[in-house]
Amino acid sequence: MSKLRVCCFSISLDGFGAGPNQSRENPLGVGGEALHEWVWPTRTFQKVLFGKEGGATGADDDFAARGFENIGAWILGRNMFGPVRGGWGDESWKGWWGDNPPYHTDVFVLTHHARKPVEMEGGTTFHFVTDGIRSALDKAKTSAKGKDVRLGGGVNTIRQYLEAGLVDEMHLAVSPVLLGGGEHLLGGLNLPALGFQKKEYVSTPAAAHYVLSRK
Amino acid sequence: MSKLRVCCFSISLDGFGAGPNQSRENPLGVGGEALHEWVWPTRTFQKVLFGKEGGATGADDDFAARGFENIGAWILGRNMFGPVRGGWGDESWKGWWGDNPPYHTDVFVLTHHARKPVEMEGGTTFHFVTDGIRSALDKAKTSAKGKDVRLGGGVNTIRQYLEAGLVDEMHLAVSPVLLGGGEHLLGGLNLPALGFQKKEYVSTPAAAHYVLSRK
Repeated sequence: MSKLRVCCFSISLDGFGAGPNQSRENPLGVGGEALHEWVWPTRTFQKVLFGKEGGATGADDDFAARGFENIGAWILGRNMFGPVRGGWGDESWKGWWGDNPPYHTDVFVLTHHARKPVEMEGGTTFHFVTDGIRSALDKAKTSAKGKDVRLGGGVNTIRQYLEAGLVDEMHLAVSPVLLGGGEHLLGGLNLPALGFQKKEYVSTPAAAHYVLSRK
Repeated sequence: MSKLRVCCFSISLDGFGAGPNQSRENPLGVGGEALHEWVWPTRTFQKVLFGKEGGATGADDDFAARGFENIGAWILGRNMFGPVRGGWGDESWKGWWGDNPPYHTDVFVLTHHARKPVEMEGGTTFHFVTDGIRSALDKAKTSAKGKDVRLGGGVNTIRQYLEAGLVDEMHLAVSPVLLGGGEHLLGGLNLPALGFQKKEYVSTPAAAHYVLSRK
């Protein structure tokens, strides 16, 4: 059955998925880049994001690779798609990722502001969903044709899907950094009460990986 | 210089240092025992708590051992000392640890209710401090004669010392378990703003260990 999966979502050891004071210059918030240091060197990320061969293998790379396996569509929150707030203006913003984004599927972007789909190179099309998280999930599942849907983030979007009981599996990568503030992923959420249990724990020198799944 | 150190303090991957519904039967709260699974098998704990030879060596044991090195006195919160609330009643409660507690130093117990010191076997004496956390720290440092003071816990006590800027070093062991509720160690605290930075990260199959220290 098609699952809604959070993969490779990085948080700090004090639980933040983005640092404080997010901006166009600091899309991950101050200090937030450090959350992702475990994944940049991996062979999977070097290939998917930069088209490069080579890179680190091992458990970090295994998790990075799993995050792209059997994924038929993505869902992103508006803030993960870009820094534009309110209306779309001249509609020139087409994501952080250049002409050929690393998704290669339909990507459903949650927003309160309607916009026509944007077709990119490499099979990625951004669709803008204005009627809520369940509608986005329905559309993504239809598009995924039986494959899984990956929920990319950010924190607020994941929290909404968690609270609605719609996430089936979540892989968190806890990076050994302190952020002190920003967006806390799990604050106030009771994961066991939401049906989650720990399925895997694998640690590396770069991160502690946890896969949580619903019973 | 004598430091105030938190050592081997176990929290869940969702940040709780004790589970929900603490009671005499469940002093660590429901599910809280699982927080400490990394430390029970270690050679250090087998020796210190049960007087047994043998046990696991490696990084988990190294951290367990470091928690007893150069410690000249301990500070405990009232709830870590025992389940008695309010006055001390017949004063029969002498801790969870039997006649020969694993401290072997002066131990300063924070309480609002005065009580005479209780001398135990093996060099442990429980002193009851009613005039606040700074007084307990002063008394413990005097007793420690230049060695470090270990702050045993629990969560509420550590948070008070953290907020007062009195903790010099903190070793957290994150166990791969979800508790969902209970006492959250770091919620609402900004460790970098309190001067902490990550000093060490070492992960094992049983826990992810972080040593945080103040600049």
